[in-house]
Amino acid sequence: MEKGYRIAVVGATGAVGTKMIEMLEDTTLPIASVKLLASKRSAGKTREFKGKTLTIEELVPDSFNEVDLALFSAGGGISKIFAPEAVKRGAVVVDNTSHFRMDPDVPLVVPEVNPEALKQHKGIIANPNCSTIQMMVALEPIRQKAGLKRIIVSTYQAVSGAGAKAIEELKQEATDLLAGKTKEELNPQILPAGSDKKHYPIAFNALPQIDVFAEDDYTYEEWKMINETHKIMADNAIKVAATCVRIPVVSGHSESIYLETEKQLTPQAVKDLLAQAPGVTLQDDPSQQIYPQALNSVDQKATFVGRIRRDLDVETGLHMWVVSDNLLKGAAWNSVQIAETLHEMNLVRVPK
Amino acid sequence: MEKGYRIAVVGATGAVGTKMIEMLEDTTLPIASVKLLASKRSAGKTREFKGKTLTIEELVPDSFNEVDLALFSAGGGISKIFAPEAVKRGAVVVDNTSHFRMDPDVPLVVPEVNPEALKQHKGIIANPNCSTIQMMVALEPIRQKAGLKRIIVSTYQAVSGAGAKAIEELKQEATDLLAGKTKEELNPQILPAGSDKKHYPIAFNALPQIDVFAEDDYTYEEWKMINETHKIMADNAIKVAATCVRIPVVSGHSESIYLETEKQLTPQAVKDLLAQAPGVTLQDDPSQQIYPQALNSVDQKATFVGRIRRDLDVETGLHMWVVSDNLLKGAAWNSVQIAETLHEMNLVRVPK
Repeated sequence: MEKGYRIAVVGATGAVGTKMIEMLEDTTLPIASVKLLASKRSAGKTREFKGKTLTIEELVPDSFNEVDLALFSAGGGISKIFAPEAVKRGAVVVDNTSHFRMDPDVPLVVPEVNPEALKQHKGIIANPNCSTIQMMVALEPIRQKAGLKRIIVSTYQAVSGAGAKAIEELKQEATDLLAGKTKEELNPQILPAGSDKKHYPIAFNALPQIDVFAEDDYTYEEWKMINETHKIMADNAIKVAATCVRIPVVSGHSESIYLETEKQLTPQAVKDLLAQAPGVTLQDDPSQQIYPQALNSVDQKATFVGRIRRDLDVETGLHMWVVSDNLLKGAAWNSVQIAETLHEMNLVRVPK
Repeated sequence: MEKGYRIAVVGATGAVGTKMIEMLEDTTLPIASVKLLASKRSAGKTREFKGKTLTIEELVPDSFNEVDLALFSAGGGISKIFAPEAVKRGAVVVDNTSHFRMDPDVPLVVPEVNPEALKQHKGIIANPNCSTIQMMVALEPIRQKAGLKRIIVSTYQAVSGAGAKAIEELKQEATDLLAGKTKEELNPQILPAGSDKKHYPIAFNALPQIDVFAEDDYTYEEWKMINETHKIMADNAIKVAATCVRIPVVSGHSESIYLETEKQLTPQAVKDLLAQAPGVTLQDDPSQQIYPQALNSVDQKATFVGRIRRDLDVETGLHMWVVSDNLLKGAAWNSVQIAETLHEMNLVRVPK
């Protein structure tokens, strides 16, 4: 055994779990061993990790014996049951589901924004919602410089946020429509929300529903963006409004963001700020048609920001376009980055 | 010859021109004859109209002899040259290009919103930009009831707004990517803007550029939404901000709209208002997952409105989701509807 952490990945066969394993192959985190956990159905399958073949094991409570760090991405129901089991056995959990995010005892962390919150962890750290993370990375430098009064965001979200089956659904529908089938001949089963009553085609369509509907006719996805922004930025006074929309993109969430700062910043000042900001890649040159694009964000860890311009009416208003790979910075990479930060801050139990 | 108008369609083979012919087959406007005009390249092709076969003719100035009404959709350059020729020969022109829209002598008309402006016409009436029209239809009833202070809109626009070749480009790229080609192997030629230097894939992507860039790093498409709103609503005090984005949808523009009214309206009051509003179909029942969808808007004349909800912070703030077929209400249908309105208001020269 190498010196390092014994890591478990829960949901190892999913869209995010697969990317978590890739991110672990690439991390600076010292790793002694990796254990891949999934449902009974996937147990016995194999997966390469740094040239070794790992066999996927069925998730049970004792899976977490002799585990230091467990990365969860297998649905809120699994996290609810098994994350406490992992903690009980001495592991620190980084959970990518929404289950613990608003729990006051659970830090909700974007490492570029609020790493200090990790110090309060009691065993579980929550990874924020994909659409929230990239917005936080883009806006935190602005908030620090000029204060942040208000955000109005409209999202253009990729289907991979709804899992591997949603990617297949998009591809099958697109294939069928290109072959001349009508929309009535399609058979959507997943989108807009697997757990909701009705399903609609996403291919060549835009669906203004992500997750199910909640209070005030906002969807849970929209509430996540509002509540998680308040928690991550530790400021409930920031006005946040969100409209979350699924579009026919495989990976890469885009966001049209309007914001109002307390102090006025010129677009150039924002560009200068973001060019230096951690986790941000500025792509903003209209004269050369340079701006972030979902297709170009795939497999990149950065949050891409462009189309920065002043509002024409409100002096402290700005508009921008923010894009990131929802499976990486929005999920797998942010989780592994939390693990790296825990390590740097000496907040994981180090194995003997 | 039947009693009625002698109509010419300029750009008869294009994405919008084709739909104009369909709309004319369906109109209440009395029609004596229809003449189809296009470039030399398309001359000689045929097209059915109400069971008769029409031959497409090459557009020349004398094409407009003995024409009462000419509907143009062949690009701004063609309108610039030939619309005055048509007027000179006694025709009234309804122009779907942007060329004359901001001309103070040219009414810019959405029949549900400002039909009275037609009375000022001097031969040319401009059809507004597709993304502007549907926003005007949805917001005018609210403006009349409660005043309109501010609009922030993010669009999700279909490729058919960029013409028939852009539709082919989307379909070819989607086919290629589904077959396993990489994005580098694609060969985009049209989008985001045919006249601009660089072209990018639209399949499984989102492009935050429609038309070319202009002042303040806003695109012309974004300026159109701002300037045309002021002209149509005849109120330059309305604050308008737009972010215009192309997504991989064939037809049907969607818009995420935030608005602030002068007087507070409840979401229910807005729903009641829009349920009765001309040209609007309300589709808003979150409990049944009812909301407008681009795919469902195709070949429909209505503007569909849903996801109506209050802003959580600003008392007079509201959010909504507005969808319409950009080739119909956004272009061909609005043009034919202008012609119908001109007829009803007795503003077209009636033939002998």
